[in-house]
Amino acid sequence: MNLSPANNSPLVGQSITRPSSVFVNGDRLWQHHCDIAAIGATGRGGVNRQALTQKDAEARSLLLSWATKRGFSASIDPIGNLFIRRKGVLIDAPAVLAGSHLDTQPTGGNFDGVFGVLAAFEVLESLEDREIVTNHPLELVVWTNEEGSRFPPATMGSAVFAGRLSLDSALSISDLDGITVRSALAETLKLMPPLPHRSMSVPPFAYIEAHIEQGPLLDSSNADIGVVTGIQGMRQFLLTVHGFEGHAGTTPRSLRKDALVAARRIIDKMEQAFSDPADIVRFTVGRLEVLPGSPNVIPGRVNFTIDLRHPDRLVLEQFGEMVSRIAESNVAPCSVEIREPLNSVPISFDTTIVDIVRATAGRLGYTHLDIVSGATHDARHMASVCPSGMIFVPCREGLSHNEAESAEPDELTAGAEVLRAVMIEISAN
Amino acid sequence: MNLSPANNSPLVGQSITRPSSVFVNGDRLWQHHCDIAAIGATGRGGVNRQALTQKDAEARSLLLSWATKRGFSASIDPIGNLFIRRKGVLIDAPAVLAGSHLDTQPTGGNFDGVFGVLAAFEVLESLEDREIVTNHPLELVVWTNEEGSRFPPATMGSAVFAGRLSLDSALSISDLDGITVRSALAETLKLMPPLPHRSMSVPPFAYIEAHIEQGPLLDSSNADIGVVTGIQGMRQFLLTVHGFEGHAGTTPRSLRKDALVAARRIIDKMEQAFSDPADIVRFTVGRLEVLPGSPNVIPGRVNFTIDLRHPDRLVLEQFGEMVSRIAESNVAPCSVEIREPLNSVPISFDTTIVDIVRATAGRLGYTHLDIVSGATHDARHMASVCPSGMIFVPCREGLSHNEAESAEPDELTAGAEVLRAVMIEISAN
Repeated sequence: MNLSPANNSPLVGQSITRPSSVFVNGDRLWQHHCDIAAIGATGRGGVNRQALTQKDAEARSLLLSWATKRGFSASIDPIGNLFIRRKGVLIDAPAVLAGSHLDTQPTGGNFDGVFGVLAAFEVLESLEDREIVTNHPLELVVWTNEEGSRFPPATMGSAVFAGRLSLDSALSISDLDGITVRSALAETLKLMPPLPHRSMSVPPFAYIEAHIEQGPLLDSSNADIGVVTGIQGMRQFLLTVHGFEGHAGTTPRSLRKDALVAARRIIDKMEQAFSDPADIVRFTVGRLEVLPGSPNVIPGRVNFTIDLRHPDRLVLEQFGEMVSRIAESNVAPCSVEIREPLNSVPISFDTTIVDIVRATAGRLGYTHLDIVSGATHDARHMASVCPSGMIFVPCREGLSHNEAESAEPDELTAGAEVLRAVMIEISAN
Repeated sequence: MNLSPANNSPLVGQSITRPSSVFVNGDRLWQHHCDIAAIGATGRGGVNRQALTQKDAEARSLLLSWATKRGFSASIDPIGNLFIRRKGVLIDAPAVLAGSHLDTQPTGGNFDGVFGVLAAFEVLESLEDREIVTNHPLELVVWTNEEGSRFPPATMGSAVFAGRLSLDSALSISDLDGITVRSALAETLKLMPPLPHRSMSVPPFAYIEAHIEQGPLLDSSNADIGVVTGIQGMRQFLLTVHGFEGHAGTTPRSLRKDALVAARRIIDKMEQAFSDPADIVRFTVGRLEVLPGSPNVIPGRVNFTIDLRHPDRLVLEQFGEMVSRIAESNVAPCSVEIREPLNSVPISFDTTIVDIVRATAGRLGYTHLDIVSGATHDARHMASVCPSGMIFVPCREGLSHNEAESAEPDELTAGAEVLRAVMIEISAN
C-alpha cells in the first residue's frame, strides 16, 4: 500500500515499536485516511470539508460505498447523523455505538474527527474479516456538523440526537450567507445515495469515541493512549456591538460611536480578567466581523464570538457571568447584545467505561495516561444518553484546528486496536 | 412633483428661505435625486450601490437616458469614467468639467457623490431650457469607483484619469471575492447602452465638483455654501498579521500566536499615539477580517486597514512613519506585512477657482464659509490636471457614509445654482 498517495500528502509517518500483533488492519486504516484526506484537500497539507457542503457529502458517500461492499446496512436520522451497522446475535438489542465526524474546520487537519469514524469502521471490517459475531449490534456513527464553523454551535448532530438541542432550532440555524441547516442538509442528502430514515428515540447500549488528543499531553509524555475521564466546560457567547456609521475623514473622535473601538475595549478587559497565572483558562475570540467593513467608514456594527473554557465548573460559572458585566460596563457610547448559544458544564465519563478503556490499553501493552479533554466532542452529549467514553491518540505537538495537524499510522492503529477490544468487551455484556 | 416618491423615501425636506429666483430647476433636481435613490435602496433609508455592480450600471443608464432625451452626447474612457457633453461655441475647446460619482458605500446615503453628478446635469439641462450657449463645451463626469469600498483605493477613476494610478494597476485590483476591476467593468458596460470610447489624454479647461460637506461645519453655522479651499491629507495602510492557527480548547495562552491578539495590541498602541487633545487627527480601522474566522480556532491571520488623515503635511508624514514602527514593535510573537496603497498629501485648490466660487456665492445672496475638506474627493486628483475647485452644501449634523445621511431640497438647489454660475463664468474665459 501507498502511505503517500499524493505528492503533497500530509499523511507521512514512520513506524515506531508497538505491540507486534494487532487484530485490526493498520494499513487499511491508513489507506482510508489517505482516501478521505483527498476530499477537500487544500493543497497546503490540510483540508476544507465544512459541514453540509459538497465535500462533506463526498466523504460520506465514499464511506457508504465501503460499507456497502462489506454488506453493512446504513441509515440516517432527521439531523443527518449517518449510521452504519454490523448486526449482532441479539438482533433487536441496542447497539454498541462508536464514531465521530467527517466535517472539518475551514483550514482543518486530516485526523480531527476522521480518525474516530475510520477507527470504528476498521473495527467493523476486522470483525467481518475474521467472521467474529458479537452479542450486541455494533454501529458506527458520523455526527453532523461537529465543528460548528459554518453553522454554530459545534457538536450540533449529537446535541440534537441527545435532545440537548431541538431538531427545529438546529434546522433553522443559518450560515453567514443566510443558508439554513435545513436547506444545506437537503442539498447534502441529494448528493448521497438514498438511505432509510431512522428515529432518534432508541438510546445506544454504550458510546465510545476515538479521537486525536488535540493537545500536547500524550505527545510530550510519549504515551500511546489517552484514557479520557471527562471534558472541560465550555461556554460560547455571540456579542453584537452597535455603534454608528460615519465618515472616517470628517467625524471627530469625540463624536464617534465606533463599534470596533468598543469591541476592542471589551475584549481587552476580558483578556485581563481571565488571564490566570496558571494558564488554565482558555479564552478565544475566533470570529470577529466588522460592518460595513469599508476602509473609510467608521464601523457601525461588530459581531464577535467568545469561546471560554475551564475544567472547574464553579470557575467557568463565575467567569461566564463576568462576560456580560464586562461587556456592558465597557461598551459606552455604543450598545451591546449578548447571546450564549453554548453552555456546557464540565462532564465526567461513566467510570465503568473509563475503567474498561484503561484496563484494555494496559492489557494490550500500550502506555496510557488519564486525560481531561480540553476540546469538546460529540461524546459530551452522548454521556447524558448512555454510558460513554473516549480514547485519545497523540498528535504532533498537540497541534489541531490547523492544516499541519499530524499523527502517525502506528498511533492510529493503536487507538483502533483499543477501540476494537473495548467494543467487543462491552458487547459481550 | 412628488418629493417622496416612495413611502419610505429618505428624501423628505422642507423649504427654507433662500434667494427667491434661481436659474436652475430645483424641483427637477430633487426628482432626479428621488429617481437615483430608488436604485439600490436598502429599505432603511439608504442605498447600496457599490462600484461596478448591476445597481451602479442601472444608475448610469438612467442618467444616460435623461442625457439622450436632451440631445447631449456621451462617451466613456478606459477606466469607465462616463462623460456627458453639451457642446460650446468653440467646438474643439477643452471642456469645463463638473461631476462626482454615483457609486456608494455598502450602507451609503443618497447624496454623497450623487449630488455633484445631478447638480452638473441640472446645469446642462437649465442652459438647454433657456437655449444659452457657452464658449467652452460643458461636460459632466461620473467618476468610476470613488468610494473604493469594493475595490480599494478610493477615487480610482479620477486617479487613473489624472495619471496618478496606472490603468493596468487599477484594472488588476480585486474585490474580496477575487473579481477584478477589469472583469467587473466589462460586466457593467454590458449592462449599459453602447458608448463611444474616449482617451484620457486631453485635460479639461477646469474642474468643479459640488458635494455635500460630509462634516458638521455648514450645518452648525447655518451657512448655505462651503467654499472649499483644499483637502486634508490622507494615508491608507493595509496590514496583515500572521499568527498560527490552533485549537481554542487545548492550546495554552503561553503557546498561542493569536493574530487577533497581536492586531488588537497594534491598534491600541496606534490609538494612543495618534490621540491628540485637539481632536484633529482622523484615525480609523474600518475593515478588519479574522481568518479562518471560526469560533473555536485561534486566529491565524488578520487583515485590517488604517485610514489616517490630517490637514498638516508634516504631521501626516510623521504619523505615517509611526505606523510601521508601532506595528513591528508590537506584533511579536506574530509577524506583520504592511502596504500603503494610498498616500495623499494635503492639497490646496487653484486660488482663481476658489475666488470665483466665493464671489459667486456672495453675489447670488448665499451665506458661505471657507472649508478645508475632511473627506477626500475626485477633485484631489483633478487639481493636478487643471484648475479645480469644489462647492459644498450642508448635510444634517455632518452625517455621511451612513444611511441616515440627509440634505434639504433648497440646500441642493443653492449648490446647483452656484455651480451653474461658476461654470458659466469660467466658460466665458
